[in-house]
Amino acid sequence: MFDYLFLGTGASVPSRDRALPCVAVRRGADIILFDCGEGSQRQLMVSRFSFMKIRGIFVTHLHGDHFYGLPGLLQTMGMSGRTDPLLVCGPEGFSEALRSCLEVCEGEIGYPLEMRDVGPGDRVGVAGMTVEVFATEHGIASQGYVLRDGPARKIDTAKAESLGIKGDDFRRLENGEEVNGVRMEDICLPPVPGSSVAYTGDTKKCQSVIDAVRGVDVLIHESTYLTSEESNAEAHNHSTAKQAAEVADEAGVGTLVLIHVSNRYKDLKPVLEEASAVFPNTVVPRDFEFYVTVKGGIRSA
Amino acid sequence: MFDYLFLGTGASVPSRDRALPCVAVRRGADIILFDCGEGSQRQLMVSRFSFMKIRGIFVTHLHGDHFYGLPGLLQTMGMSGRTDPLLVCGPEGFSEALRSCLEVCEGEIGYPLEMRDVGPGDRVGVAGMTVEVFATEHGIASQGYVLRDGPARKIDTAKAESLGIKGDDFRRLENGEEVNGVRMEDICLPPVPGSSVAYTGDTKKCQSVIDAVRGVDVLIHESTYLTSEESNAEAHNHSTAKQAAEVADEAGVGTLVLIHVSNRYKDLKPVLEEASAVFPNTVVPRDFEFYVTVKGGIRSA
Repeated sequence: MFDYLFLGTGASVPSRDRALPCVAVRRGADIILFDCGEGSQRQLMVSRFSFMKIRGIFVTHLHGDHFYGLPGLLQTMGMSGRTDPLLVCGPEGFSEALRSCLEVCEGEIGYPLEMRDVGPGDRVGVAGMTVEVFATEHGIASQGYVLRDGPARKIDTAKAESLGIKGDDFRRLENGEEVNGVRMEDICLPPVPGSSVAYTGDTKKCQSVIDAVRGVDVLIHESTYLTSEESNAEAHNHSTAKQAAEVADEAGVGTLVLIHVSNRYKDLKPVLEEASAVFPNTVVPRDFEFYVTVKGGIRSA
Repeated sequence: MFDYLFLGTGASVPSRDRALPCVAVRRGADIILFDCGEGSQRQLMVSRFSFMKIRGIFVTHLHGDHFYGLPGLLQTMGMSGRTDPLLVCGPEGFSEALRSCLEVCEGEIGYPLEMRDVGPGDRVGVAGMTVEVFATEHGIASQGYVLRDGPARKIDTAKAESLGIKGDDFRRLENGEEVNGVRMEDICLPPVPGSSVAYTGDTKKCQSVIDAVRGVDVLIHESTYLTSEESNAEAHNHSTAKQAAEVADEAGVGTLVLIHVSNRYKDLKPVLEEASAVFPNTVVPRDFEFYVTVKGGIRSA
């Protein structure tokens, strides 16, 4: 089960109240970070989460407000004596971009740092969890992530044995092949509830998101505008609160969390009201708000 | 006359109380920024200074805590509709480093942005002020800056005329030549008091700093350690509070301002006490502290 810490809920430009996008999801002691806007390392310092416990960082796209906090955070981990390995992923071009930014400033990263470009359809294992990559639409290479607590496919070994699956069969099933009429999903246990979260990053409302986040417990969706500025949302490939709620509704998720709210909206109430009218189980966290999983959803703690 | 806003007074790693190095010096409406650690744009947003009024940014060296806030700030200025030109300077390799970081993230910089590598001995004009570059010692290419209100050399035209200096003579004097036994300093007005500030960036105590900052009204010197950790200061090419005070004393400056204080010192009082014992006119500002020039020095306002 996950805890959620909203380190940065702003959009494009930071304000007094909202830092740039960064969301930490924790399972036990292990933390996964989604996006890493400039200033994320300081938000982490101020927060209750230890940045040394981050196991994976997943960046949705290469806009500065989602990325420019990463080089500094990685170097700070090094200066702070980190030795644990760290996986950082992003869309095509991500590793090269990060390497460029790290190279310009001297810094010791004395821990195993794996940079990986991933794309829609990819599945990444990290700290015993699984991250699935899905396509978003934001005018540049962009993607969202579904984090599942535990392997996305947990095999029912008794069932596999009863169907005669053994040895090399598992590798063939993993590769999408059929073995004696058996497919991978036939030998997998049903997913555990309370254990999946999707993070969209910046995107307009789109079918690929709805398909990818179907049935997740928590959907963290961008919500840059209100419907009164829908034309702006359209022009900049962003979503309105209502559109995000429609995605949540159509995908049948558990709880909708809205972040990436434009600074023009000082008051979050209209954002919450607009989304709740379509999808009642919605929250709009402030920076540093911390949520825990409870029966039937999440609650601020 | 200058105002001073200390946006980031921390060292290496940000903390709850101290952001990464960034100091704004204002004359009238025009702002000059020294260093631009990660998060500086948000510090500016929260502060009383408008980041749109920044005319020049001077980076002392390419360590992340002094540089990684720059790409985001420049892009935010663009997104915010800036059209005024901006000059950004740093040591050798600076322009290329900045260009690398800007290129990895799409962003519109729709204003004239001049990037310039400068080095010790260079003199740069910006918004009617002059910035002189001097060498520091920090183990990598590093430098400090002296900002003077108005041209560094204001010529006394009546005196020049009385000495027979005219036409091309001025260019020759500017180039360091003598003309009929007259040198540039012979025809210059004395500097206006209350109008010079030096910013060291990271450095150990060194003669090049003492020579360059001689007689400035305000010296903003790094002070990473206390004398009890002098060996650490030595090992990492940083200064103790006492060493910074010795520089201020030997250079005969007006006021000493200490920043870049290690997070290990939660309490700034020992820092102030150590420096004041050597150089009484010392202040140790906190983030967002604002100082104005008054008769005989500066005071918190």
